[in-house]
Amino acid sequence: MTSLNMIEAAASRLDGHVRRTPLLSSPFLDEIAGRRILVKPECLQHTGSFKFRGGLSAVTALDPEVRKRGVIAFSSGNHAQGVALAARMHAIPAVIIMPKDAPALKIDNTRALGAEVVLYDRVGGESREALGQGLSDARGLTLIKPYDEPQVIAGQGTTGLEIAEQAAELGVTQAEVLVCCGGGGLTSGIALALEDRAPEMRVRPCEPDGFDDTKRSLASGIITRNPSESGNICDAILTPQPGEITFPILQRLCGPGLSVTEDEALQAMALAFSRLKVVAEPGGAVALAAALFRADQLQSDTVIVTISGGNVDPSLFREALKRYA
Amino acid sequence: MTSLNMIEAAASRLDGHVRRTPLLSSPFLDEIAGRRILVKPECLQHTGSFKFRGGLSAVTALDPEVRKRGVIAFSSGNHAQGVALAARMHAIPAVIIMPKDAPALKIDNTRALGAEVVLYDRVGGESREALGQGLSDARGLTLIKPYDEPQVIAGQGTTGLEIAEQAAELGVTQAEVLVCCGGGGLTSGIALALEDRAPEMRVRPCEPDGFDDTKRSLASGIITRNPSESGNICDAILTPQPGEITFPILQRLCGPGLSVTEDEALQAMALAFSRLKVVAEPGGAVALAAALFRADQLQSDTVIVTISGGNVDPSLFREALKRYA
Repeated sequence: MTSLNMIEAAASRLDGHVRRTPLLSSPFLDEIAGRRILVKPECLQHTGSFKFRGGLSAVTALDPEVRKRGVIAFSSGNHAQGVALAARMHAIPAVIIMPKDAPALKIDNTRALGAEVVLYDRVGGESREALGQGLSDARGLTLIKPYDEPQVIAGQGTTGLEIAEQAAELGVTQAEVLVCCGGGGLTSGIALALEDRAPEMRVRPCEPDGFDDTKRSLASGIITRNPSESGNICDAILTPQPGEITFPILQRLCGPGLSVTEDEALQAMALAFSRLKVVAEPGGAVALAAALFRADQLQSDTVIVTISGGNVDPSLFREALKRYA
Repeated sequence: MTSLNMIEAAASRLDGHVRRTPLLSSPFLDEIAGRRILVKPECLQHTGSFKFRGGLSAVTALDPEVRKRGVIAFSSGNHAQGVALAARMHAIPAVIIMPKDAPALKIDNTRALGAEVVLYDRVGGESREALGQGLSDARGLTLIKPYDEPQVIAGQGTTGLEIAEQAAELGVTQAEVLVCCGGGGLTSGIALALEDRAPEMRVRPCEPDGFDDTKRSLASGIITRNPSESGNICDAILTPQPGEITFPILQRLCGPGLSVTEDEALQAMALAFSRLKVVAEPGGAVALAAALFRADQLQSDTVIVTISGGNVDPSLFREALKRYA
């Protein structure tokens, strides 16, 4: 179970390796939202998403003897790149199991970061778990899960330590903190950090409409699955359901979830472009979209927003600009 | 004449108001450049460019009695927004004289930042200087020049103080520092700061081909004009010639200039998008373009690059992505 001590320990291990992303703002966004908006752009993190924090936390927490045999992860996206770079920094092998039909660019980037990419046939029903287990057993690799892993949550939680410090520098101690939420690693990590460091802040998970498993699970008190697992542009945060480890943390610490449409996510991407000069991917823009377009469901004078990643297909980004910039 | 003391004094006045932009990097950019590239993204500065530093430095340096009467500036772009926001922070009037044919968005943004925009007919030959002088005399406004003004140079120089500190944290004390150069305010300010704080760094001004007045002036030792004043997408840095105050500083401290094509600037914008997740305008991307595509004219193992601004028309940005991302 992740504790504040674990987050602080992760922060010291990550110090000097993880980028301390700034806290951005724009009077134009404040005007749309009708309140003060502060933005934590984790798209500026190494590998283009917060996932590097969790990947590096997990890799650095391993016993050196275990670590040197290498790590393995399942991911078609940001977690893959985060783990690959963390492994490269330690000069250890990283095996990333990716679906054969993952975008070529993501496969290339993961390989370029030094990982061995093993492709599996998602459509043909090949079991990635069996494939992964076989590789782990044969080579002694340690599996790094994307969110249901205490050291990964601790790494993501370092984002929360920074938010508390940077907001305090601006005189802000009370705020709703909107976090883009897939399996809940970033959301639960930030919530744990803020519980101690900024107890008057409340985390609100943000998701795409139709893939709002966390919002619905929080409302019902029971882990609830999404009806489908794909079919939304917010690919980075489409998880089937909240994690077994993350959900109890979310339940204890977070306020009600928020959800937005795909169009609102695209609009938020266009506004992040024109007003903040950062590149957000659709899943990374849902919290900003909620801050801008769900004002009626928010209470605090200041809202802090994460942009969780910026690994977006250029043609989709162009479409967002064409329609909304 | 701007001194290190003035830059340090500007840094204390700006502290807490100006954003400390991070130092970014990507292994993919290093690979293209064949060396280590560190990027200072001033596009993330308030108003989307470094110009806010100089504007705020000049406004805060004024005698309070003089300041409260207000300020005036000539600009169709980034300097306008920088001065407007600086004035708004002090609740003083700001008059910005802009050409009638400036992009509507830039006029709107400047107004939205609280400035009074006065339009003049650039094509019809109306003298903006006479217009400005009339307004200054009538209202007691202080003119804030875009670069040939010691307190503006001091403000831009705070970027150099940050570069020296942030590079030192990464263990970098030797580097060529590539700066996007128009009139030379940012370039000379950074060069003055580094002269003391990182004497083994050397500033290299970067410009678009055909508008490389600084490069040619440095080569000849005489201030040399560009043959034309418009007709290049790098609008933010198209100045007729180096400044009277900035040029002697550049001459004393900077290495030879570099210049790049418009296509290379667009390519650098696309790479800043995909690899750094920041939005660069064409003029703001010339230093990155030089780092990537003029490797043969560079010597140092590490090159530090400024992205001076991100206020780019969405359709031009889409074009850059379409062609190069």
